[in-house]
Amino acid sequence: MAAELGHGNCLAWAARNETGTLSPYRFDRRSVGADDISLKIKYCGVCFADVVWTRNKHGDSMYPLVPGHEIVGVVTATGSNVKGFKVGDHVGVGTYVNSCRNCEYCDDFLEIFCSKGGTFTFNRIDSDGTVTKGGYSSFIVVHERYCYKIPDGYPLDKAAPLLCAGITVYSPMMRHKMNQPGKSLGVIGLGGLGHMAVKFGKAFGLKVTVFSTSESKKEEALNLLRADNFVISSDEQQMMSLGKSLDYIIDTASGDHPFDPYMSLLKVGGVLVLVGFPSEVRLLPISLNMGAKSISGSMTGGTKETQEMLNFCATNRVYPEVEVINIQYINEALERLIKRDVKYRFVIDIANSLS
Amino acid sequence: MAAELGHGNCLAWAARNETGTLSPYRFDRRSVGADDISLKIKYCGVCFADVVWTRNKHGDSMYPLVPGHEIVGVVTATGSNVKGFKVGDHVGVGTYVNSCRNCEYCDDFLEIFCSKGGTFTFNRIDSDGTVTKGGYSSFIVVHERYCYKIPDGYPLDKAAPLLCAGITVYSPMMRHKMNQPGKSLGVIGLGGLGHMAVKFGKAFGLKVTVFSTSESKKEEALNLLRADNFVISSDEQQMMSLGKSLDYIIDTASGDHPFDPYMSLLKVGGVLVLVGFPSEVRLLPISLNMGAKSISGSMTGGTKETQEMLNFCATNRVYPEVEVINIQYINEALERLIKRDVKYRFVIDIANSLS
Repeated sequence: MAAELGHGNCLAWAARNETGTLSPYRFDRRSVGADDISLKIKYCGVCFADVVWTRNKHGDSMYPLVPGHEIVGVVTATGSNVKGFKVGDHVGVGTYVNSCRNCEYCDDFLEIFCSKGGTFTFNRIDSDGTVTKGGYSSFIVVHERYCYKIPDGYPLDKAAPLLCAGITVYSPMMRHKMNQPGKSLGVIGLGGLGHMAVKFGKAFGLKVTVFSTSESKKEEALNLLRADNFVISSDEQQMMSLGKSLDYIIDTASGDHPFDPYMSLLKVGGVLVLVGFPSEVRLLPISLNMGAKSISGSMTGGTKETQEMLNFCATNRVYPEVEVINIQYINEALERLIKRDVKYRFVIDIANSLS
Repeated sequence: MAAELGHGNCLAWAARNETGTLSPYRFDRRSVGADDISLKIKYCGVCFADVVWTRNKHGDSMYPLVPGHEIVGVVTATGSNVKGFKVGDHVGVGTYVNSCRNCEYCDDFLEIFCSKGGTFTFNRIDSDGTVTKGGYSSFIVVHERYCYKIPDGYPLDKAAPLLCAGITVYSPMMRHKMNQPGKSLGVIGLGGLGHMAVKFGKAFGLKVTVFSTSESKKEEALNLLRADNFVISSDEQQMMSLGKSLDYIIDTASGDHPFDPYMSLLKVGGVLVLVGFPSEVRLLPISLNMGAKSISGSMTGGTKETQEMLNFCATNRVYPEVEVINIQYINEALERLIKRDVKYRFVIDIANSLS
């Protein structure tokens, strides 16, 4: 725990090795370029990606590693070319902070699919050769293209989870035209992503059924999140009774689970969208062929739809459920996240606890 | 082989047991009802389904079993209510001959997805309690709803494979909007379904790449079927060179094969449509999540789109490649079909050989 603090203009918390234990750390952020804005960070959401990379689960972690990609702050400086933001604005930054801005995907504001590869907000080599460092830090400097306006009056702590969890479910829901009132949505898993899928589903006017392995989530699913139906996925009779009744399923479960039983719940032409990362997807061809069904994947969204999603949440009063913590609690919070013991997203109060 | 011929108004060839060996057989077709038409069968295509059910591969075969669901004939009688057909018309019948005509799917002319279950052309219990018998027979009586007009001048032998193989690839191609000139299509497997996917792809103005396990199909793929590119799927270098280059893939292979290598060839938002029946579908979540890709299934199509497909083939001069055989050759033909030794569809000349 007695890792060296280091020097630099930015105070952060970093993991120093594969234990993933976070502790205070200083480093230099770049100065504000012509297209950049600088944000004083107010809040940063805690995503499972923070566990994955602080603990080097993919073998590509570069230490010291500052995680965090659900960033909300206030503009303190703007570069000479910046047109979209001014000092004092409430701004969000999500899972990526750079891209080529010159390929077919960037041209369509789908920068996450950039042909040259988008630059993730932490643990990636940026175009200036430095390693990106995330939102568990006092401020961040970002090209304005990858910054979003938080609508006036939207609570900043609740805005944070929208920048990853929110857009990750909103993007495929829009791509698959799930915003059709009266249609039926199933949501598998009720964590950070799942609870947002329920909220968007209700905001779209859908009939929402939550599938969970745990009875303990039933009351909140129905009463707090306003789901219409709650099903224990191991209850075969309940599952059978829903056969061919759902238009869409959002699968947020990252643990391994069978797919065929869920596919059988879809109507003709139905789609299951995978946003979790189980170890494999395995199903019978008949689960797709009978009824012309699909399994589709998704990861976050482009800048244009991220801004649309933020505006949608403000207009429709869609607010994530958060547990606000101090940065000093982050190591315990990550342990709790691994145990799925959070309702439904930790958000770090950076401004009041990082000093 | 000395199975009893039996009695009845219809001469056919039937399998009598799980050996699947076909031999002459007589049975009674129903008389022509008010909504029915009666067809003198001219040609019947040979589909792999004929192997599956004559040999009881699914454990549900009812013997004697008369296969065949790519039926083309000439109208010889019409019921009093029939409006769409008259004596002498060239007519096709495909994979189903009945449905409830009263559910949401029937209302949308997607009868194959009928809520009460469509009635397949052979080996299914029809609404009158009889077991349906297919096109390896001298005539058939069918409700006009499940009959299609073969456009004037379209060769009847070549029309037969359109009723199953043709619509099975055309339907998902239209559902996934593959009729966009300039887009790129991959076709896995070059049998009855695969060769039709290539032909439709070229008719839609697509750039078509054929994936095959056998170099022996290269010349015909490029010169006869007019594919733009031919790739041996085991050639990793060729496969790698096509990374993220295809908009769509039609997978007609029924043998087991890996899916991840093909998914990596799709562009962002690309879709692989499964029309074959491998024993399972198994892939890594990242193959779907990175690039928001989909795997989708499909089986044949509704009556409205089947008629559209026939009209499209006539207008655009899309003709299946067929090997016309006599019914007396059917047992050898089925053996050759199992060995994939056919270019590309056997069609039985019923009118000239069944007597």
